[in-house]
Amino acid sequence: MKEPRTPLLPFTTVDRETVARCRVFDVDRVRRRSGLTGETHEFFQLSAAEWVNVVAVTREGEAVLVRQERHGTEAMSLELPGGLVDPGETPAEAALRELREETGYRGLVAEPLGFVHPNPAIQANRCHSFLALDVVPEGAQRLEGREEIEVVRVPLAELRELVGRGEITHALVVTALYLMDLRARATGAR
Amino acid sequence: MKEPRTPLLPFTTVDRETVARCRVFDVDRVRRRSGLTGETHEFFQLSAAEWVNVVAVTREGEAVLVRQERHGTEAMSLELPGGLVDPGETPAEAALRELREETGYRGLVAEPLGFVHPNPAIQANRCHSFLALDVVPEGAQRLEGREEIEVVRVPLAELRELVGRGEITHALVVTALYLMDLRARATGAR
Repeated sequence: MKEPRTPLLPFTTVDRETVARCRVFDVDRVRRRSGLTGETHEFFQLSAAEWVNVVAVTREGEAVLVRQERHGTEAMSLELPGGLVDPGETPAEAALRELREETGYRGLVAEPLGFVHPNPAIQANRCHSFLALDVVPEGAQRLEGREEIEVVRVPLAELRELVGRGEITHALVVTALYLMDLRARATGAR
Repeated sequence: MKEPRTPLLPFTTVDRETVARCRVFDVDRVRRRSGLTGETHEFFQLSAAEWVNVVAVTREGEAVLVRQERHGTEAMSLELPGGLVDPGETPAEAALRELREETGYRGLVAEPLGFVHPNPAIQANRCHSFLALDVVPEGAQRLEGREEIEVVRVPLAELRELVGRGEITHALVVTALYLMDLRARATGAR
């Protein structure tokens, strides 16, 4: 990398105040001081648990997806299973738990694909993606009261086309699939 | 796709109330009724402008990136240039404007790569990604008061490695690069 040197310096956080509590995230107003200019500016942060999602693949080579109404877009969305990491849980455990709850499929091992920051401008949390191979149907879904989820199986090789055709648009699902692609390329698989 | 048929039905929004105004987004509390169960549940939405980012490539084959403190993660982040679509502006115009402001580089055409929903669970807005070829340095950055941005040029072929190594972690940057990769693959380029 060639970097035209502007000597950037870190900001420091002066104070913070929670302005809204929204069940799955809080909204904080923070004031942060520039190390470069000494000026203080106001920013907003969402604080939320870590997030996970999982590319779960059956022995027949099908990915187990979920389709559900999303209440931000107010529309149906085709996605990987996933959700919040509960307190005391590792991201890998959360991925397998969410898979089981949302789809009824059980996976034994969740292999890490990496993580992204969903939106570093306003959130500190990460979304961790996993690959679970040889998942098997184990029983009914275990959904919370507000959840209505349809299970959709798709040949693994078609996932990329679903992104290319705009049928999968959830950014964190797209990042999981790219991390899987990059790993496959690095290891020479597929 | 094989779909075990659960007859999902759309939700309808019953009412909404803004609970926080956070400069670049509002937070709304909405109540939505399930078409399946008739039950009403409470959800939270961030409403924000459309977002854009751009893979800008010089005639020498270098991508023009930006490095800046991000106030959600409270850390430096290496990213594509991008930002909010202003009222009256197309996403393509916003991409070229943000490129010019944040980096000093000018592009003539922003070719659409597609879009994602940053987080359909809580946001309706989209992030549109573009490719701008043959960008040229035109002058100084035009930064807002709170912006401190370093311009970093990286050979285009290295971008994928920066994602694989975890040096680029911004989800919406990762999705832009995947959309570019998928398009290159579809058109047989690179």
